[in-house]
Amino acid sequence: MPRYALKIEYDGKPFAGWQRQADQPSVQGTIEAALAKLEKRDHTIAAAGRTDAGVHGTAQVATFDLEKDWDPFRLSEALNFHMKPAPVAILKAARVADDFHARFSAIERRYLFRLVVRRAPMTHEAGQVWRVLNPLDLEAMREGASHLIGLHDFTTFRSSICQAKSPVKTIDEITIEEIAIPHGQEFRFFLRARSFLHNQVRSIVGTLEKVGSGAWEPSRVKEALEACDRAACGPVCPPQGLYLCGVGYPQDPFED
Amino acid sequence: MPRYALKIEYDGKPFAGWQRQADQPSVQGTIEAALAKLEKRDHTIAAAGRTDAGVHGTAQVATFDLEKDWDPFRLSEALNFHMKPAPVAILKAARVADDFHARFSAIERRYLFRLVVRRAPMTHEAGQVWRVLNPLDLEAMREGASHLIGLHDFTTFRSSICQAKSPVKTIDEITIEEIAIPHGQEFRFFLRARSFLHNQVRSIVGTLEKVGSGAWEPSRVKEALEACDRAACGPVCPPQGLYLCGVGYPQDPFED
Repeated sequence: MPRYALKIEYDGKPFAGWQRQADQPSVQGTIEAALAKLEKRDHTIAAAGRTDAGVHGTAQVATFDLEKDWDPFRLSEALNFHMKPAPVAILKAARVADDFHARFSAIERRYLFRLVVRRAPMTHEAGQVWRVLNPLDLEAMREGASHLIGLHDFTTFRSSICQAKSPVKTIDEITIEEIAIPHGQEFRFFLRARSFLHNQVRSIVGTLEKVGSGAWEPSRVKEALEACDRAACGPVCPPQGLYLCGVGYPQDPFED
Repeated sequence: MPRYALKIEYDGKPFAGWQRQADQPSVQGTIEAALAKLEKRDHTIAAAGRTDAGVHGTAQVATFDLEKDWDPFRLSEALNFHMKPAPVAILKAARVADDFHARFSAIERRYLFRLVVRRAPMTHEAGQVWRVLNPLDLEAMREGASHLIGLHDFTTFRSSICQAKSPVKTIDEITIEEIAIPHGQEFRFFLRARSFLHNQVRSIVGTLEKVGSGAWEPSRVKEALEACDRAACGPVCPPQGLYLCGVGYPQDPFED
């Protein structure tokens, strides 16, 4: 059976997360239901990152097999048609090799976290950013983040229910940019690693917000990391600012 | 009674428009209901532009009187509290002179229209842009728009139910920018005038899209304008890409 890969964008707001659930809407379930309209049977698709409830995707990748030989463009159009009006969009579809797997072939994940400082509640971007009330210090957050780059035991920054075998991971990049917005500040955190632990990005951003607000010295991030103790972590920040925005493979399956 | 001005942001999606309606949610009604929590009586607020159903605001201005002397910051915080969870946010409140009026004192309105070209449906920005499927020619649209700048009889570009006394208006600016987005193109139209006719911006953008797609020669915009005939207009485009993004006054009431 021919194998396909999808590049997927979704608004995480109405979903209980990526993963299929018996009684709640999920991104995986939405796409699998659309696949069942094309080939009438149960489908199970594999994703590069199983995002939590409320977390968004702008370039999630999923793979699956179909019986029929589909033209990739027609496949993406048909899936987009059948998923209406769910906020899930197939940006691109591609035929891939039989041994290509969205999760196991991936060598890099990129996440974006959007943090907005302003007094007024969000309107157009409600559910799409984490809003806080007090100004944040960009340079302090950058200094705090610098302690996390490289190979470390990230026990402090993983969920207690994380199922990864090892807490040791390498973070290749944490870049923080400040963007001028009317009536506030926006901070964009870009994180890049081969893979992340459960809640690792949200644990890191929640901790860096403490640094930005002045509640923590930047050096306390280093101490928290070295403690290898979940209790040393800052608060885990809410999911709605988080976007899976890129997945890297040895060769880009979507390249024309 | 002291008079106040508000700078207001709202997502037009859930509203039947700015104007209060007996049986449908409106932006005006949402703000007036919050005012009634502060001073228990009927309130009527005046807006710089009464936007249609689905149209957004990022800097709408409204004025009204209150009995009590409110600190402007506390007033904006209280209104934001009482409007939750409606997607309406008070960005700023200000005390203004008794003869200042959001609508009649305004000397300029600025509108943004967001038009996205891509195959995939919108997710995070559903209801916030007009999406079309076919590529558009920026230079052709700019050439078409150039015919509309200045003082003209805009009968062709006004709604048949427009209540303005005269169809003669001066458009000071139509700027069109193309922004690179993944998997598509975005065009942002900025329009600036002392005031606009009903549906004028949507009539203009709908017509310019025809030019961009190649269905109309740019010179046909000039012919349509000169025809002074509503039937000569291109299609009126949908409301969801339109934002009232600025209102000008002889002196900015929100300046600190």
